[in-house]
Amino acid sequence: MRILSGMRPTAKLHLGNYFGALRNWVKLQEEGNDCYFCVVDWHALTSDYEDTSLIRYYTREVVTDYLASGIDPEKSVIFLQSQVKEHAELFLLLGMLTSVGRLERIPTYKEMRSELKDKDLSTFGFLGYPVLMAADILIYKADAVPVGKDQEYHIEFTREIARKFNSLYGDVFVLPKALFAPIAKVPGTDGRKMSKSYGNAIFLSDTFDVVKKKIMPMITDTNRKRRTDPGDPNKCPIWLYHLLFNDDEDSRNMIMEGCRTAKIGCVDCKRMLLQKIKEKMEPFWEKRAKLERDQNYILDVLKAGSRRAREVAKKTLEEVNEAMKIGL
Amino acid sequence: MRILSGMRPTAKLHLGNYFGALRNWVKLQEEGNDCYFCVVDWHALTSDYEDTSLIRYYTREVVTDYLASGIDPEKSVIFLQSQVKEHAELFLLLGMLTSVGRLERIPTYKEMRSELKDKDLSTFGFLGYPVLMAADILIYKADAVPVGKDQEYHIEFTREIARKFNSLYGDVFVLPKALFAPIAKVPGTDGRKMSKSYGNAIFLSDTFDVVKKKIMPMITDTNRKRRTDPGDPNKCPIWLYHLLFNDDEDSRNMIMEGCRTAKIGCVDCKRMLLQKIKEKMEPFWEKRAKLERDQNYILDVLKAGSRRAREVAKKTLEEVNEAMKIGL
Repeated sequence: MRILSGMRPTAKLHLGNYFGALRNWVKLQEEGNDCYFCVVDWHALTSDYEDTSLIRYYTREVVTDYLASGIDPEKSVIFLQSQVKEHAELFLLLGMLTSVGRLERIPTYKEMRSELKDKDLSTFGFLGYPVLMAADILIYKADAVPVGKDQEYHIEFTREIARKFNSLYGDVFVLPKALFAPIAKVPGTDGRKMSKSYGNAIFLSDTFDVVKKKIMPMITDTNRKRRTDPGDPNKCPIWLYHLLFNDDEDSRNMIMEGCRTAKIGCVDCKRMLLQKIKEKMEPFWEKRAKLERDQNYILDVLKAGSRRAREVAKKTLEEVNEAMKIGL
Repeated sequence: MRILSGMRPTAKLHLGNYFGALRNWVKLQEEGNDCYFCVVDWHALTSDYEDTSLIRYYTREVVTDYLASGIDPEKSVIFLQSQVKEHAELFLLLGMLTSVGRLERIPTYKEMRSELKDKDLSTFGFLGYPVLMAADILIYKADAVPVGKDQEYHIEFTREIARKFNSLYGDVFVLPKALFAPIAKVPGTDGRKMSKSYGNAIFLSDTFDVVKKKIMPMITDTNRKRRTDPGDPNKCPIWLYHLLFNDDEDSRNMIMEGCRTAKIGCVDCKRMLLQKIKEKMEPFWEKRAKLERDQNYILDVLKAGSRRAREVAKKTLEEVNEAMKIGL
């Protein structure tokens, strides 16, 4: 199965990205799928064109996170969108078949415009980002796109535009399906959903000391006011972290029981969690630190991957132009 | 001076195109300017994406008209937009800086949507065509763009977007100015403005017999009902053709006088015009017929020109990406 997915280079990746996406990407890769994972730098411009100073930096950081997580450039194609110019060509062509009204009705369009008031989302580029996303997917004839539930509509839009193209000019595109990863609840350090814009994220690049500084002051079950009060793990974000990092059932049972009976305090519980995080993340941190020191390798991976992606994209564009009877 | 202009491959060119644009392009070329003349096939899609079957045919016809008119591939770069993929990349990037409201306020946008009701102009592609036009111009850092008065606003828009880019990321683009050709009034065979959509056009590719069939039944001064009535050349489209084709002042004076005094009839006047058209157009028709038989040459001109255009476009895109800090 051909798989495509990507992330924007607008921040370092955090635990939410790992458990919500990256972990699943690695699984898809290890199952032997034909995977294309990209960094969509042009998409970064759709919501922030004024300050582009960090796009290259975050591009390298995101790829470092991909690689440290287990995405393997020998098995998957890791590439940078802007290095495959054919995405822009297909974006232009698909835009010709897309009604403006259709784009304005995409739920995230109005939602994001009212939520992100500090950003200039009144642009043609932002209006067109579902078209660019459709181009990203269709150009590789991806069968499936691992996405979050919030992206489901975009995949449906992609199918719609592919169907329209195929019926007008002939069957060129594969209709992709959305692939939902098992839902992992990853709270931020303030208990809300982890998100870089909330400032509550634990980044994959955080050192153990930073993680410790973020976890120790976290608010737990708010009803447990004193050490001697019993608590309820189901109301505690630290417990959700135990579910993600602590695979030891005995330990988890002990914590569940200890919290409910006030046998253990929140500080004990957090220390146990930090120990588990350390065990689980140490190989990742080591790998990441090593990759970070070798920026040339990161660039080489992107260059080689982009070259491979371009070959596929070029071939698709040849078919597209032939079907549309464009060119010489 | 670097010059850029182009035409859509949606029809064969007619006398209006010649006297309104092509004649001026040749003059600019002969004055030693650095001219880029393109066939904008992607623009053809902005107003008609459903039926693309004739785009390639009209592309060759338009280039044949360019060459027969005197555009010389040794002096000017003649190229096909879709062969220079960088136009799409710059279109995408400039779209990020362009507000949707700004595009909706472009006068031709609402105008064309209400005039061309049989076409689907509700598309993202149609909304964005001024952005694509801006990319076409800016990518060659053209100093001047020969256009009709109706396109003046698009050049102003292009300057605006170039100014915004330069102020955000650094000076990359030249601000182009509009270059207006001396206005030539070219009526269609029904007296209205010549336009292929009115079905009143005399095409550059029309043979003498076809031209004759179009001119002879033309309505002249409507007040001149009988052969013996005096006429007024200033109310007659045939007179406008004399101004374009009949360089012989004596002959023109005689016609002016003869019409006003009913010494000559409209049939005589049309015969004289046809003689002048024949004299003036015969070398063009011969050249065009010869070119038409050599389709490979037409394709070679486009290929070579597109290669030259691409070199310039590539260089600009490198500067653009460096300024925006996009890419590796």
